[in-house]
Amino acid sequence: MRQDDARRRLGEARVAALATVGPDGAPHLVPITFALDGSVVWSAVDGKPKRAGELRRHTNLRSNPKATLLVHDWDEDWSQLWWVRADGTATMRDDNGALARASELLREKYGQYAVVALYPPVIRMAVEHLSGWEAR
Amino acid sequence: MRQDDARRRLGEARVAALATVGPDGAPHLVPITFALDGSVVWSAVDGKPKRAGELRRHTNLRSNPKATLLVHDWDEDWSQLWWVRADGTATMRDDNGALARASELLREKYGQYAVVALYPPVIRMAVEHLSGWEAR
Repeated sequence: MRQDDARRRLGEARVAALATVGPDGAPHLVPITFALDGSVVWSAVDGKPKRAGELRRHTNLRSNPKATLLVHDWDEDWSQLWWVRADGTATMRDDNGALARASELLREKYGQYAVVALYPPVIRMAVEHLSGWEAR
Repeated sequence: MRQDDARRRLGEARVAALATVGPDGAPHLVPITFALDGSVVWSAVDGKPKRAGELRRHTNLRSNPKATLLVHDWDEDWSQLWWVRADGTATMRDDNGALARASELLREKYGQYAVVALYPPVIRMAVEHLSGWEAR
């Protein structure tokens, strides 16, 4: 897949799987909403119910900033299948500037965030490698 | 989410994101088809075009067998969101017994595999922990 196609599909995707790695070397996966901002991906935590304590994606990223995002679209017609993967480095940002930028872009992309509060820290992932595959 | 609900949703899902970890500690993600077989997940490589060389999910699993699967369903109505995550240990199996079992279950689940060849090695993941979340 061409880089511009991969970039477009990543930007348009509504949800991604975010992979991080724990101190024990095990992968961790969670679906996230996100916004693409040039070569940066922003993601934030909203008000949906969470278990107590810091989220595992956050504790993982604090000890190992390597992160991967996958977007894909299932289709029973396998000639329609495609996926895009973004590999990069993610940092946790607690500052107001990061929260403001992430909130602006997430609210622009997702109407749902109009009535959902966003909380720091936000994830700022610098995309270093973008790859993609499509069946045709 | 209750364990039996998580198990049912995992079994019914048509596609999952498979996360593995590379020798450099970076996560790797790829969408896979799979079949649930009790507490085992089988996945195989089909005839869709692939780049040359061994797949990265395979080389990663040979050096670090820790694997995570994520299934989820996007919905613009966020009260409908849910995900299920399976953590476990995955091994590469080159033997005919494993290929036969994986092929049987994958062909039962996916009509598409009727006309698509499956090749060893297959991935056999023993699910050790199943967790899930749903918005309501």
